Amino acid sequence: MDINANEFRDIDPGERILMGPGPGSVPPRVLQTLSAPCVGYLDPYFFSVMDDTQRLLRYVFQTENTLTLPVSGTGMSGMETTIVNTVEPGDEVVVCVSGFFGARIGEIVSRVGGKVVRVDGEWGRAIDPDVVRKAVKGRNPKVLAAVHAETSTGACQPIQDLKGIARECGALFLVDMVTSLGGMEVSLDKMGIDVAYSGSQKCLSCPPGLSPVSFSPAAVQALENRKSPVVSFYLDMGMVSRYWGEERKYHHTVPINMIYALREALRIVAEEGLEARFARHLLNHRALVAGVEAMGLSMLVPEGERLPMLNAIRIPEGADDVKVRKTLLNDFSVEIGGGLGDLAGKVWRVGLMGHVSCMRNVVLFLSALESILRSQGVKTKGGAIEAASAVYAGV
Amino acid sequence: MDINANEFRDIDPGERILMGPGPGSVPPRVLQTLSAPCVGYLDPYFFSVMDDTQRLLRYVFQTENTLTLPVSGTGMSGMETTIVNTVEPGDEVVVCVSGFFGARIGEIVSRVGGKVVRVDGEWGRAIDPDVVRKAVKGRNPKVLAAVHAETSTGACQPIQDLKGIARECGALFLVDMVTSLGGMEVSLDKMGIDVAYSGSQKCLSCPPGLSPVSFSPAAVQALENRKSPVVSFYLDMGMVSRYWGEERKYHHTVPINMIYALREALRIVAEEGLEARFARHLLNHRALVAGVEAMGLSMLVPEGERLPMLNAIRIPEGADDVKVRKTLLNDFSVEIGGGLGDLAGKVWRVGLMGHVSCMRNVVLFLSALESILRSQGVKTKGGAIEAASAVYAGV
Repeated sequence: MDINANEFRDIDPGERILMGPGPGSVPPRVLQTLSAPCVGYLDPYFFSVMDDTQRLLRYVFQTENTLTLPVSGTGMSGMETTIVNTVEPGDEVVVCVSGFFGARIGEIVSRVGGKVVRVDGEWGRAIDPDVVRKAVKGRNPKVLAAVHAETSTGACQPIQDLKGIARECGALFLVDMVTSLGGMEVSLDKMGIDVAYSGSQKCLSCPPGLSPVSFSPAAVQALENRKSPVVSFYLDMGMVSRYWGEERKYHHTVPINMIYALREALRIVAEEGLEARFARHLLNHRALVAGVEAMGLSMLVPEGERLPMLNAIRIPEGADDVKVRKTLLNDFSVEIGGGLGDLAGKVWRVGLMGHVSCMRNVVLFLSALESILRSQGVKTKGGAIEAASAVYAGV
Repeated sequence: MDINANEFRDIDPGERILMGPGPGSVPPRVLQTLSAPCVGYLDPYFFSVMDDTQRLLRYVFQTENTLTLPVSGTGMSGMETTIVNTVEPGDEVVVCVSGFFGARIGEIVSRVGGKVVRVDGEWGRAIDPDVVRKAVKGRNPKVLAAVHAETSTGACQPIQDLKGIARECGALFLVDMVTSLGGMEVSLDKMGIDVAYSGSQKCLSCPPGLSPVSFSPAAVQALENRKSPVVSFYLDMGMVSRYWGEERKYHHTVPINMIYALREALRIVAEEGLEARFARHLLNHRALVAGVEAMGLSMLVPEGERLPMLNAIRIPEGADDVKVRKTLLNDFSVEIGGGLGDLAGKVWRVGLMGHVSCMRNVVLFLSALESILRSQGVKTKGGAIEAASAVYAGV
């Protein structure tokens, strides 16, 4: 069982512009920071890096929650962490599902033995709070779960009304913020969110590999009142928090270099400031939509329910989904995403997340898409760049 | 809830020599590779990186197992992955425990509802196969689990006899190779191991964040025959393997840059060759032990049961454990580990893992330790460097 080491070449991915559903492009500063020398997980220097990272995470989550830290896995591990810690076998969980990731929450709740009360909404739309209120009526769920930014559709779920419903029925309010964190308002404390998780590779512009999570005091209380141990040892917040807290008790060796990078990515967010960052995301989103619609294409999600960082564009008749994406990647080095689940073949998902959300990329994408569609014989109206430019000019 | 971005300085950990129980020092080539531009998880270029990584992992594991891949988490996630996938509620699992990590296997088995049959051995010793044989007698366990290289003690568990016992009772043979992989022989196929897991940050000399795992065809069959779904969605190998296999079906966004780095670290292993790498680990271990014993200190583990990459040295009377380690770190930039669990305060754990296993580090450690012990008034015999040098000279 031998191998020839000379067969393998140096890593050289070239220069991609990552405008898919994530990972988004990572700024050079963050990449450089990744390659700082590794230190031990009990090194006093690393403790300061951990403290900084937690402070910065509390800032981007806009929370005072002590239990705020990056889980040692990708965004999916954050979804699993929040569920396995809050849900015990037999617990009832109301899950709002209007896309791929809402459905996954339900699947994970089932696996840990929770009883799922599924509230289904149309994919590509926000769920009407009244439908949720009806589903909850007469129940005492342990958790009400929703997806703030549904990455599979580009729809934004308003949080305010759901929070009220969770409060009324005494449930913990658990929200997926994988795609929203760092790109739009996600003020945990103001929004009354008890449990949130996100990913490093979306609007924070760090490579994938970490999942920021935050638990409110009420959620921490629920963890302490558990009757059964958390089924996952790796994701057991009671143990993980003792390493991230003052005790520094060993639980597992955290991904040191990834945490360096996350800290740097968060620092960049702090330098820009949340308000400015949200405004930038919104402006580039508006320009993109103006261009797309000028071209004669349409968005999946109705105006007013759209996310600023993830844009689902309906694939126009006559266009070859896969070929368009391949040409974008090969000829323009631009990656966008295809549809997930029921939306496969029906939409393109264009991410404008964090670092990648800028005028240059909007203009490049619009013109590249138009040129590829025309080469496939798909008729488009002109005027995409003009329409986008008008948005930038504030017209 | 504002923050001042100017409070945070650039990451600058200085130059540590990581001679603890892991992470070990990471070679510059691997660090550089970490910072290559991030690409999407469905990028054709990344598929080639995945294929290379799997081929290289099969080489270091010395296996033909198709299901060989890095789990998207640290070593502990590998332990959890192998257990949650192979053990169903009610399954009996025989766990050999002679250290901290063996005990953890038992804890995880319990959490997923398995019945633990614990075979306890003295910490710092290999477990006598006859004791295991007796414990297994009359049972039909689903899994027999052991730790090849017990990082908490520095003891090596011989695998050959245990394999025979697993075969006799029809159990899957599950082995923790977190610390052994890449530093000593771990030929899965030859050793008859069905399920193995490791960590990126030990003898592979990659930063922490990935956990290589491998499942034999018999183990894959067991996964397919499961009656209940795997309780962890994130670590469900049936799903993860569909992304790492030809289908490339999305499951979660893997840690792209960490996988670049692991591939590079594995490539370095292949360039050196396994035999040469094992010989290097053994030589530096022998030199370290010769120096330690010449100094008048003693090893925890008896000769013949010692690991080449993790050396547990008994703390001599009069030495201040924490102060010795702090001085090593602050004055010499050398990190070693303290004792875990029952061995806290009783041993130092000195890692010679992968990149860090070299004559320079052995000689530096011995002389630094001697100088610190003397400054604490602990008498040591001279001759450590001479004894180590004699080993290098082949005397």
